[in-house]
Amino acid sequence: MIHSIVWLKHECTVQTVEGRRNWGILERLNAGEVVIGDGGFVIALEKRGYVKAGPWTPEATVTHPEAVRQLHREFLRAGANVMQTFTFYASDDKLENRGQSLKYTGAQINEAACDLAKEVASEGDALVAGGVCQTPSYLSCKSETEVKAIFKKQMEVFIKKNVDFLIAEYFEHVEEAEWAVQVLKTGGKPVAASMCIGPEGDMHGVSPAECAVRLVKAGAQIIGVNCHFDPMTCVQAVKMMKAGVEKAGLKAHYMVQPLAYHTPDCNCQGFIDLPEFPFALEPRILTRWDMHKYAREAYKVGIRFIGGCCGFEPYHIRAVAEELAPERGIMPPGSEKHGMWGSALEMHTKPWVRARSRREYWENVMPASGRPKCPSLSTPECWGVTKGHADLLQHKEATSTQEMKHVLEMQKKAKSSA
Amino acid sequence: MIHSIVWLKHECTVQTVEGRRNWGILERLNAGEVVIGDGGFVIALEKRGYVKAGPWTPEATVTHPEAVRQLHREFLRAGANVMQTFTFYASDDKLENRGQSLKYTGAQINEAACDLAKEVASEGDALVAGGVCQTPSYLSCKSETEVKAIFKKQMEVFIKKNVDFLIAEYFEHVEEAEWAVQVLKTGGKPVAASMCIGPEGDMHGVSPAECAVRLVKAGAQIIGVNCHFDPMTCVQAVKMMKAGVEKAGLKAHYMVQPLAYHTPDCNCQGFIDLPEFPFALEPRILTRWDMHKYAREAYKVGIRFIGGCCGFEPYHIRAVAEELAPERGIMPPGSEKHGMWGSALEMHTKPWVRARSRREYWENVMPASGRPKCPSLSTPECWGVTKGHADLLQHKEATSTQEMKHVLEMQKKAKSSA
Amino acid sequence: MIHSIVWLKHECTVQTVEGRRNWGILERLNAGEVVIGDGGFVIALEKRGYVKAGPWTPEATVTHPEAVRQLHREFLRAGANVMQTFTFYASDDKLENRGQSLKYTGAQINEAACDLAKEVASEGDALVAGGVCQTPSYLSCKSETEVKAIFKKQMEVFIKKNVDFLIAEYFEHVEEAEWAVQVLKTGGKPVAASMCIGPEGDMHGVSPAECAVRLVKAGAQIIGVNCHFDPMTCVQAVKMMKAGVEKAGLKAHYMVQPLAYHTPDCNCQGFIDLPEFPFALEPRILTRWDMHKYAREAYKVGIRFIGGCCGFEPYHIRAVAEELAPERGIMPPGSEKHGMWGSALEMHTKPWVRARSRREYWENVMPASGRPKCPSLSTPECWGVTKGHADLLQHKEATSTQEMKHVLEMQKKAKSSA
Amino acid sequence: MIHSIVWLKHECTVQTVEGRRNWGILERLNAGEVVIGDGGFVIALEKRGYVKAGPWTPEATVTHPEAVRQLHREFLRAGANVMQTFTFYASDDKLENRGQSLKYTGAQINEAACDLAKEVASEGDALVAGGVCQTPSYLSCKSETEVKAIFKKQMEVFIKKNVDFLIAEYFEHVEEAEWAVQVLKTGGKPVAASMCIGPEGDMHGVSPAECAVRLVKAGAQIIGVNCHFDPMTCVQAVKMMKAGVEKAGLKAHYMVQPLAYHTPDCNCQGFIDLPEFPFALEPRILTRWDMHKYAREAYKVGIRFIGGCCGFEPYHIRAVAEELAPERGIMPPGSEKHGMWGSALEMHTKPWVRARSRREYWENVMPASGRPKCPSLSTPECWGVTKGHADLLQHKEATSTQEMKHVLEMQKKAKSSA
Repeated sequence: MIHSIVWLKHECTVQTVEGRRNWGILERLNAGEVVIGDGGFVIALEKRGYVKAGPWTPEATVTHPEAVRQLHREFLRAGANVMQTFTFYASDDKLENRGQSLKYTGAQINEAACDLAKEVASEGDALVAGGVCQTPSYLSCKSETEVKAIFKKQMEVFIKKNVDFLIAEYFEHVEEAEWAVQVLKTGGKPVAASMCIGPEGDMHGVSPAECAVRLVKAGAQIIGVNCHFDPMTCVQAVKMMKAGVEKAGLKAHYMVQPLAYHTPDCNCQGFIDLPEFPFALEPRILTRWDMHKYAREAYKVGIRFIGGCCGFEPYHIRAVAEELAPERGIMPPGSEKHGMWGSALEMHTKPWVRARSRREYWENVMPASGRPKCPSLSTPECWGVTKGHADLLQHKEATSTQEMKHVLEMQKKAKSSA
Repeated sequence: MIHSIVWLKHECTVQTVEGRRNWGILERLNAGEVVIGDGGFVIALEKRGYVKAGPWTPEATVTHPEAVRQLHREFLRAGANVMQTFTFYASDDKLENRGQSLKYTGAQINEAACDLAKEVASEGDALVAGGVCQTPSYLSCKSETEVKAIFKKQMEVFIKKNVDFLIAEYFEHVEEAEWAVQVLKTGGKPVAASMCIGPEGDMHGVSPAECAVRLVKAGAQIIGVNCHFDPMTCVQAVKMMKAGVEKAGLKAHYMVQPLAYHTPDCNCQGFIDLPEFPFALEPRILTRWDMHKYAREAYKVGIRFIGGCCGFEPYHIRAVAEELAPERGIMPPGSEKHGMWGSALEMHTKPWVRARSRREYWENVMPASGRPKCPSLSTPECWGVTKGHADLLQHKEATSTQEMKHVLEMQKKAKSSA
Repeated sequence: MIHSIVWLKHECTVQTVEGRRNWGILERLNAGEVVIGDGGFVIALEKRGYVKAGPWTPEATVTHPEAVRQLHREFLRAGANVMQTFTFYASDDKLENRGQSLKYTGAQINEAACDLAKEVASEGDALVAGGVCQTPSYLSCKSETEVKAIFKKQMEVFIKKNVDFLIAEYFEHVEEAEWAVQVLKTGGKPVAASMCIGPEGDMHGVSPAECAVRLVKAGAQIIGVNCHFDPMTCVQAVKMMKAGVEKAGLKAHYMVQPLAYHTPDCNCQGFIDLPEFPFALEPRILTRWDMHKYAREAYKVGIRFIGGCCGFEPYHIRAVAEELAPERGIMPPGSEKHGMWGSALEMHTKPWVRARSRREYWENVMPASGRPKCPSLSTPECWGVTKGHADLLQHKEATSTQEMKHVLEMQKKAKSSA
Repeated sequence: MIHSIVWLKHECTVQTVEGRRNWGILERLNAGEVVIGDGGFVIALEKRGYVKAGPWTPEATVTHPEAVRQLHREFLRAGANVMQTFTFYASDDKLENRGQSLKYTGAQINEAACDLAKEVASEGDALVAGGVCQTPSYLSCKSETEVKAIFKKQMEVFIKKNVDFLIAEYFEHVEEAEWAVQVLKTGGKPVAASMCIGPEGDMHGVSPAECAVRLVKAGAQIIGVNCHFDPMTCVQAVKMMKAGVEKAGLKAHYMVQPLAYHTPDCNCQGFIDLPEFPFALEPRILTRWDMHKYAREAYKVGIRFIGGCCGFEPYHIRAVAEELAPERGIMPPGSEKHGMWGSALEMHTKPWVRARSRREYWENVMPASGRPKCPSLSTPECWGVTKGHADLLQHKEATSTQEMKHVLEMQKKAKSSA
């Protein structure tokens, strides 16, 4: 075990890294280790200029590998033990959706993503996880066979590239998540399943507890939630999953990779429904101190794979790793550039900032928005449509003028009834 | 001239880039061009894990050049025409301040910074600017000779590396800014001078108008402000500078590189005094739409060198470049991954998000903080001390326990009188 | 004097005023009439200078009858059909609680209250309701016999003064409410029972549905909630009560008399726990437009006795009466001084205020607090103590220094764990 | 009945009540006494159902004298030393404005108002002040002779009724205020002049300092401001007036009677321009603790006639009187029902409320709005029109449909440019 660890100021040394190097995800979790996940690539790279909001596809793995590699490195440095391949929405049906015409196939993008994740993982203490997520095909009511074929195609790249484990993540409907798990299980690697749901359950009203049981029965060894809700809400949802699994007499490991946005005003579909999504979420971004609370709460609940999703920047992951440093016996490499609880502010020029170099200060700060004419909560849009509704059908052709007119009318109607 | 430009969807081609490639900063400004600056490196790299908040020094140019290079590239891609060397606080007196013991000299850091900026600038339409900023020596009441020697040492690296122009930025006292300009002028390059002041003027109460006149008289060809205040406040301060210069019958070009944080509640020292500085500023971060308004306002006021400082991410600079695309006749490279005013949301999965793919929506959104228990404005700390006060003296030794006790008492006193 | 206004659109079905004059509360409710309650006297008279916050006792009926009479008249004029005797906390055990030494007995106060309510009720279309509420004796774990004796003493005054019906209101524990109903039933008048609970149920966790069933079984003909929560929350609680009664195959009429304060941040004990209670609730006061929404929602849910409690001013009751004017076929007398939906602003001096003389304007206004340094929600104090806990024991003697020290320590502890 | 409370600490220097009974307003102010004003009747009686928002006229003095008398009594009890006649807008031109057809003449209303004020004043330590205010005739560009005739008519009633002094209040244009003072001076009583302006000055841009000098020169012995802005803003404006008067080598006494609404977001026309005016101002209402700060600040600045205007309820005036009790050597009668700084909460049922019975608690509470979807500040409407602009012309006829259409268009235009 590695818990006999010292850190003298900010230098810290894991004593048995060598011994653990060959451990996979299950070995780590079985041993009770805390595994730190990385943060979301889609939003982080959108801000850096490499992902297009709307399609949200990861062709940057091919077009701008240096940008993707750099973000991997930053999360590794922040303490992440998992490098997820940047393969979100990298299925061919998504790459061709609504008029997007990319030069690269899903296979090319997935392969490049694996190479980048593996390259960086080898530079530190991290595993590589190949990821699949929900498909436009499912939303468009394609058959189980068709949808599973999409997952299989992606998985084959991951197996070929020999990733360490697989994650089926960002599923709004438990049925599709089960299909994904069933496919991924055929790869012979450990499988994690993570839905983008909150305490209200999936889009068809299946509770977190029931989702959890079904995912475990489908073969997932690690289950949890990611995206769509803020950390405390996600932890709450995973807690409900855990209770469900235990009540059913089953066993699993638990993961959580929430948003780095405060979303107390969300309904079941999460931040997608907020009027600020995706271009005005800034005031909701969590501070590093919010992350300390999140990490502590997730740990308390019994979750051991703790990471992030949209909105997470490297410093957010570092805060998670710093909060759990006592349990993990290790500080992240990036902490060489960070004084715990702001202690490096002792070196600041201004004396009143030096006075802030302490935990009590930052634990109690209530940050102002600087926006006195904005509210503190929003009314989420709530069209109440999901898989099975005509408006949710996805297609290859660009959104037509007629379709745009229709959604604008819907928006107006939704607003007036809010 | 380049204003006969077309952009067909998102492809756009500057027709005379070749002809302009040799233009320096003054040629561009004299021709009436809009020059887009880059964003701040200190905060952006702090979030990425390469800068330590407190000392804020740029040793990452030596230790993690790939991270610095990547950020340069992102700003270039976002449309920046200026790559500022990452040399903030890279003077030897600062590198040794308050117990910081770095392995690298100022010269090493400055040289590495020049190499990185030049490398990336050569990949696009950008100039390299070597930057110096205020020194702990000045705050500690060292002599003019001593302070000027510090600037000279940094400048010699810039001249040796043959940067395109020089910027003296982030000065709270006009006297020190004048000294910096006087030194930089000896290098034979164009000189810009930018203070971190707002409409209330410098820390000794010198008005923006008077600061401006003194900087022009000291030899600066471009003057303005950076950091410390939000965009609209900074534009207001530069407007006052411009009025002062014109009233004095002088001439100058104008620059502005504000924070990407809303700071309506700041007093004269700017965001440093906010209780949220530097670790809880998230709710104040500007959206890209705020940046459109900023860019338009700066342009209207007559400012032509328009960039950013702390808090700016590449997408903020891209928004500035997109707003001024009609005037500049060019879209930034990074706009290939961004639909103007959210237009690429037409490709989003959910119909209610597709309904947001239009300017009217984003121009009018009033983003909620998601923090109903936090206020919208803060009370800045106002110790009322600046150069000349004992508490502002900087020193090599780490802050002592006695000193910490003193500042904590001061903090308590300041709060109770707020 | 009653306006004989007819609403042709909604086919006014109100009996002629003369015919209804003799109707009691049950006749009215049985006929499907909407009965408008009055607002709370305790807070309204505290602001006017006649009630002391802390003891909250109604000795003003004896000491300042003109002030009590005037408030009755204002509510009558606003449209109220019920004049509740101002007898809140007018039991001898409460009048002597914690060092309060009043010159008047409960009987004196109760008698004076009856006289005032009857006098004003006779000036319009209103019934008189004698009210009892929870006792310190119950909180102090006195026996059923002792507690019932207190209610009996108050009731005897009401019977002697021949009020129209009786209300047992403001009960936090259903057990005590049942006792009260059992006593009041012996008076031979119709009995209403109203608890100060929200959707979470009573202080011992009994659900609204179960509370409702128990109150109906105890003999109450009208049941509902009052005080402690904002209108929408109270309506929600009554809805749950109604569902419980119907599920049990029972029958009842329903009443609601909520706060005029927004309390979205309250937990089960309601506004008492808010840090703003009772002297800083101003920013939470509902507008008249909020009252329109409340009245409409209460009506929709099937509640027909609709009034108010703490925070209600006469104009709030008038707004309830105006919203339901179509259903009631009558406008309140006080509407002679109010243009529906602001229509009298047509007579305002300033043209931009005249432009606000319409429903669309006021229905959509989102009123600012003018307090940018205050939050929008608070963290309620949650000591988690109720009847049975030593801290809840009430006594005659003034709170001792030792007791004050204890509660201050408890407060500090509660805050640090919030 | 007046409490003969003595504050030993602050060396009470108030003359015996008996000796002071015959003192007029000037004797009191000359002796350095603090004179407490009353609060505004218009808004308080609108909430109680006796004033119509829009015309805002005081016919209730005739139609509902008991309601007016009661409010006088409450302010007297709260500590007010001045009973202002409820004669706001009681000039014949206003009573007939925009289609209002009242049965009562200005003279009838003014006479009834004097009788009520005198009756209540005689019950305590208060003077009666007859008040006139700005006229629609002035806004409609009537001549000086015509406007002065209106003031004269009102004044004649005050002289006949032998009030103690006269107040010309609520003037937006200093010119009209001067005319009023000139007329009132002919009555031989002391004259106070109060404008409804803030630090930006009157509607034609005349500064507070200049307004003050002109009013003193016109003959006013007491000058100040009332209405339109929150207490701190009003105090600031009076401070500027005082500086102007002193700079001019003149002498005057100072008064302030502000709103009880927070208005940090107002421009020069004050709360009239706020989108919340007049029916959604609730979240802005000051607490009693805000009033303590106001009273202290007004006193510090040298103002000695300290009262209130719109939004003030009796408990607000009581708070002013309680804050200045040490200086005045007397507590208001109404304080028998109020524990200073919440001390009577010691008698509250719940222990956590008993813990709030102290100054530290209430001085530091930051009250939440309970409205998380509302902003904290608004954008005032700013049509930029005043006397001289066609839209400001007042007339007898009701606002026509054509005129309403026009103002709605103006409103739309104003909003889109905000």
